[in-house]
Amino acid sequence: MTIQTVSLNKSYGGMQGVYKHASRETKTDMVFSVYVPPHQEGAKLPVVWYLSGLTCTHANVTEKGEFRSACAELGLIFVAPDTSPRGEGVPGDAANAYDFGLGAGFYVDATEEPFARNYRMWSYVTEELPELVAANFPVDPKRQSVVGHSMGGHGALTVALRHPTRYRAASAFSPIVAPSLVPWGTKALGGYLGGNKDAWRKHDAVALIEDGARFSDLLVDYGDADPFLTEQLRPELLQSACEKANIPLNLRRQPGYDHSYYFISTFMSDHLRWHAARLKA
Amino acid sequence: MTIQTVSLNKSYGGMQGVYKHASRETKTDMVFSVYVPPHQEGAKLPVVWYLSGLTCTHANVTEKGEFRSACAELGLIFVAPDTSPRGEGVPGDAANAYDFGLGAGFYVDATEEPFARNYRMWSYVTEELPELVAANFPVDPKRQSVVGHSMGGHGALTVALRHPTRYRAASAFSPIVAPSLVPWGTKALGGYLGGNKDAWRKHDAVALIEDGARFSDLLVDYGDADPFLTEQLRPELLQSACEKANIPLNLRRQPGYDHSYYFISTFMSDHLRWHAARLKA
Repeated sequence: MTIQTVSLNKSYGGMQGVYKHASRETKTDMVFSVYVPPHQEGAKLPVVWYLSGLTCTHANVTEKGEFRSACAELGLIFVAPDTSPRGEGVPGDAANAYDFGLGAGFYVDATEEPFARNYRMWSYVTEELPELVAANFPVDPKRQSVVGHSMGGHGALTVALRHPTRYRAASAFSPIVAPSLVPWGTKALGGYLGGNKDAWRKHDAVALIEDGARFSDLLVDYGDADPFLTEQLRPELLQSACEKANIPLNLRRQPGYDHSYYFISTFMSDHLRWHAARLKA
Repeated sequence: MTIQTVSLNKSYGGMQGVYKHASRETKTDMVFSVYVPPHQEGAKLPVVWYLSGLTCTHANVTEKGEFRSACAELGLIFVAPDTSPRGEGVPGDAANAYDFGLGAGFYVDATEEPFARNYRMWSYVTEELPELVAANFPVDPKRQSVVGHSMGGHGALTVALRHPTRYRAASAFSPIVAPSLVPWGTKALGGYLGGNKDAWRKHDAVALIEDGARFSDLLVDYGDADPFLTEQLRPELLQSACEKANIPLNLRRQPGYDHSYYFISTFMSDHLRWHAARLKA
């Protein structure tokens, strides 16, 4: 479980690092970023996991997410994994599409060939990387939360619903909430998990709730100028599932905002304050 | 004086735009970014000019600068020009070096061939772009200030010292303060302005102060882990020039910080508050 430091920069009194390691799950090198806020020697800090969207690496949120100011103030470690395996021998989309394969792992463990060997992002973000981070950074594993954007919002909701005691808070920006029902999701889940839609339900937030999964409460922001809103994201499906299941959902429509990091960064500190309140409760 | 909108994204309640226009000074298309904070219809707002460093375009600070939160709160327009002309027919550095030519205009009007035709960044940032911005955005031209990083810190200090009434505030992150005396500066000033060092003094903050230029007060931050500190930046030269000239200089050594946007973003809102206090006085 050794990690290699790619870069380390002081920011807001803490340290923003980028690290590389050989992943047992993906059988590739994987890169991730960790921000450690200023803290007292020996302290163990709560950790926020950030799952990124289609086409992203750790770098997008690390450079554009504007999370360090609030993390420094609130004492939160912030971890951003990549969105897929990468490198020589890793199969991608046959047509080089942006929404499947490289940069589009969808936070599942693939069972279909040729993806099953490397595309193990579910086990990577829920098992391997948490162990690695716990071994190398001053985190308190009892205080974890998760947030994500778009495909990563789907990831955040599904890992939270399947690990409702491990993650004390979960929120999302512009998440895909019902991948089984939308084009991005059916392409990805079909490609990675095959045609048996029963296997998809564990990777679909709305289906998980229908099947009995619960979470304490959820915060979701979306922009009403998001070009993917009505075809791919469909937050109203999460709203009705949460209503039926009595899951408190704070679903906020942000007027004029789109799908970009200009939107995410605007509400990032808001989300981190929501997480901190639950992580420190 | 028409401008073309490249992109427009809502952020922190305002609009982050990127624009393109045909420049009369550089004889090329030029791209710049403007953030307009939320404001009352008809209001005229103060404007902060941000001059970027070597290798940058408008995009670096626009994506990584973390200025929108403070600009939205303080009601400041934030403009970021490119650092050189670009495009077909624009001569660059013969060896494709990062510190001369494309991305390295040094905020001078070149007099040497083959650069004199296009490299007119002094006139571009002090004359043409201010006119264009005033014609297209709700700015109050009586309330302007300037801030920059590295090569752009040099730009900010020199435009402020030569226009001490136009700019009500000036600050810099990790500026080059005495280009006539350091490798980046002698290469650039020699290449653009030729061997007569008298012509360099109008583009050297320390020389301008020695020659009588004054400014109300200056704020400069640098990181003591900046790899360019002792060879290229040399803030102590600005300190002694300001002391001799009785220019109040708030020169802050920030321990552990480097030359990157992780440093700049940490202190950006601090600088903008300093500007706002002077722009609204």
